[in-house]
Amino acid sequence: MKRVVILGGGFAGLNAAKALRKARVSVTLVDRHNHHVFQPMLYQVATAALSPGDIASPIRSVLRNNRNTEVLLDEAEAIDLGARSVHLVSGRSLPYDYLIVATGARHSYFGRDEWEPLAPGLKELEDAFVVRRRILLAFERAEQEPDPAAREALLTFVIVGAGPTGVEVAGAIAEIKSYTLERDFRNINPRSARVIVMEGGPRVLPAYPPELSEKAQQTLERLGVDVCTNTMVTDIRPDGVTSSSGEYTPARTVIWAAGNVASPLLKTLGVPLDRQGRVPVAQDSTVPGHPEVFVLGDAAAFDDKGRLLPGTCPVAIQMGKYAGSVIRRETSAATPGPRPPFHFFDKGQLAVIGRGRAVADIGKAHFSGFIAWLLWIFIHIFFLIGFRNRVLVLLEWAISYFTYSRGARLITYDRPVHMPTAPRSADAEPALEAGAR
Amino acid sequence: MKRVVILGGGFAGLNAAKALRKARVSVTLVDRHNHHVFQPMLYQVATAALSPGDIASPIRSVLRNNRNTEVLLDEAEAIDLGARSVHLVSGRSLPYDYLIVATGARHSYFGRDEWEPLAPGLKELEDAFVVRRRILLAFERAEQEPDPAAREALLTFVIVGAGPTGVEVAGAIAEIKSYTLERDFRNINPRSARVIVMEGGPRVLPAYPPELSEKAQQTLERLGVDVCTNTMVTDIRPDGVTSSSGEYTPARTVIWAAGNVASPLLKTLGVPLDRQGRVPVAQDSTVPGHPEVFVLGDAAAFDDKGRLLPGTCPVAIQMGKYAGSVIRRETSAATPGPRPPFHFFDKGQLAVIGRGRAVADIGKAHFSGFIAWLLWIFIHIFFLIGFRNRVLVLLEWAISYFTYSRGARLITYDRPVHMPTAPRSADAEPALEAGAR
Repeated sequence: MKRVVILGGGFAGLNAAKALRKARVSVTLVDRHNHHVFQPMLYQVATAALSPGDIASPIRSVLRNNRNTEVLLDEAEAIDLGARSVHLVSGRSLPYDYLIVATGARHSYFGRDEWEPLAPGLKELEDAFVVRRRILLAFERAEQEPDPAAREALLTFVIVGAGPTGVEVAGAIAEIKSYTLERDFRNINPRSARVIVMEGGPRVLPAYPPELSEKAQQTLERLGVDVCTNTMVTDIRPDGVTSSSGEYTPARTVIWAAGNVASPLLKTLGVPLDRQGRVPVAQDSTVPGHPEVFVLGDAAAFDDKGRLLPGTCPVAIQMGKYAGSVIRRETSAATPGPRPPFHFFDKGQLAVIGRGRAVADIGKAHFSGFIAWLLWIFIHIFFLIGFRNRVLVLLEWAISYFTYSRGARLITYDRPVHMPTAPRSADAEPALEAGAR
Repeated sequence: MKRVVILGGGFAGLNAAKALRKARVSVTLVDRHNHHVFQPMLYQVATAALSPGDIASPIRSVLRNNRNTEVLLDEAEAIDLGARSVHLVSGRSLPYDYLIVATGARHSYFGRDEWEPLAPGLKELEDAFVVRRRILLAFERAEQEPDPAAREALLTFVIVGAGPTGVEVAGAIAEIKSYTLERDFRNINPRSARVIVMEGGPRVLPAYPPELSEKAQQTLERLGVDVCTNTMVTDIRPDGVTSSSGEYTPARTVIWAAGNVASPLLKTLGVPLDRQGRVPVAQDSTVPGHPEVFVLGDAAAFDDKGRLLPGTCPVAIQMGKYAGSVIRRETSAATPGPRPPFHFFDKGQLAVIGRGRAVADIGKAHFSGFIAWLLWIFIHIFFLIGFRNRVLVLLEWAISYFTYSRGARLITYDRPVHMPTAPRSADAEPALEAGAR
């Protein structure tokens, strides 16, 4: 029986495994987390609207009925194309007949890796906990801060990048400060907090049609967000951000929603990578010269008629299904014939900006407002993995919609800490350092 | 205006603050967490049935309508009874006219503090994350463990103590191994896992009538739990537990549900404490000689006709309401007259053992089984703080009841880690250490 190894339990890896359910192959899926995360809704955990369990499912449960599939909680360290084998961090090696590399991307700080602890991004559940804690602690510390300038810096939130994640996070923080926390503080007025989006390009949501970018910007501004386009961030320090105009903005909370870089594992393939660390793949999404090695989702640079496919869920899902079906056909048919190339079917894109506000770009139709938001809700609920999550998330949203409350407003740490806050310290998260030996 | 300082946002502190809502006093509530935790349901987070947000509410939101109350995210370091002032970790001092000390308890390892990292207990959300991670990782590692003896140790769960928490945790793990994980693994049979409860006393649920203890033990045994009464734990090591019979049980997951010790803050009062570190209080639950200092809940040793009140929620709630109402009366009436003593009204006790199984001891009525379980559900839902949580938790329970699924089966860390598991390492949580600098 042919051995298929899948690296990564994101949208591409999981869909490949599902497409192989009835194939006569032996599948091993490796992920360093025990759960699949619904990444497009990660910002909802970061902004305390949803609980982690609402947007994540154990990979084992999702693949429970794939009797041919084994799930390993482990991490790939290197791929040996010649020996057709993957080396894992645990020391094990997995030989393969087919390999599917779907290890996704992390944030890229454009060579300024020292910014990472100062400006966390959103890729994994753990990132969302860090961002949630910073947002909530900023208000807590401002409440106790006697110095007006320091208080203002604590109440200034800078979001770097105005793609869908940046826009969604900015909209959510704007709602938190204006509605959720409205009556919760005694010394500060949460409404006075500033939310600033800094985008290097000329408009927000650069991948959308210009008219929707404009709508999105108007909506953000109506929510009280300062949108600065054509503004690059040139320096980030613990107490503020410098932008390309030379202006310095004191801000204690910075969230990174700018560049991506593919997983460093790809370097071990020994093939040329593009500037974002992705593998330029052939038309069947494989490594050129290695038809047995698929590279999918954010790890792939797929040239679709002169334009690279974006790093979105729909691309990852369709690539996963494609790779799975190719392998199934080749392992079952006696003479499978030539592989069809991968074709991406673009169903459009959607970004949500806040309660009842979104923009949608579906084929020739561009629309915004409440209808776009409802569409977003239904599509995202539909794609959520697991029946339980769908019902619960819908209910959580319904309650949030009518009450503006956010049910997951918890400042938590990984393990008990002696003292979670030292309001006068200059450090962003002193308690964490103290708690984590 | 009189200044009331409340230390601790648990059941006692929160109920005291609520009772003072209309009083003409200025209230400051200090807690080192931003949230109140519904402690009796903490084991449900530890066993992946509920999300943290379901059983915790931000203290600020709960007290949002107490316009006279300020909430401080901080921690008390010392109390100066003479100067009537509390020193906080942040460096601030809070002078008071009335002080309410409701700082709860932590686990006591009977002088064997080196056991704490090996056998975590359940008091805070953070504890629940640690326990949840250990339980889920044990199954993950067993799946990859080639050595049968090591696999057996990974699949052995020892719970120390058979009070309500111990019984509830044991029942929940028994259900996880038999139902929740049933079809999720390929190399191990989760059903073969052993759950062992070790109790030093002669029966489980020592505070309950003997007939209910017997029922509870039968129910646990029917779920496949080994109940060892009259069994003290004499040593805990990373790979197993030694009991008073001299027997050594290889076990990689140990959960502590035995003794308690009151918060170390009480030592700074300079008054005599009892063996569990609690303040032996007067009949108005104050420090003898200091009628302005109330000590409530788990921090108090209250002599109720020769018997000490137990460290349970109902006691804490009633003490909080009592202290609040005493202060309200004394600060509003011109001649308030003598204080009435505190009286605890015992409504009975309930412990749940698993899906549809519980024991209830209500006045003269003792019952067990499904009716007791329904009663438990309704009482606990009723006490959950916040409308949103009640609806969601009821729904989560309904879904879990019919599907045996557990929606929060997530192995998460505090911040991104490079590698969450090294299956062959002897250390229980190597990745955590790696992740936490």
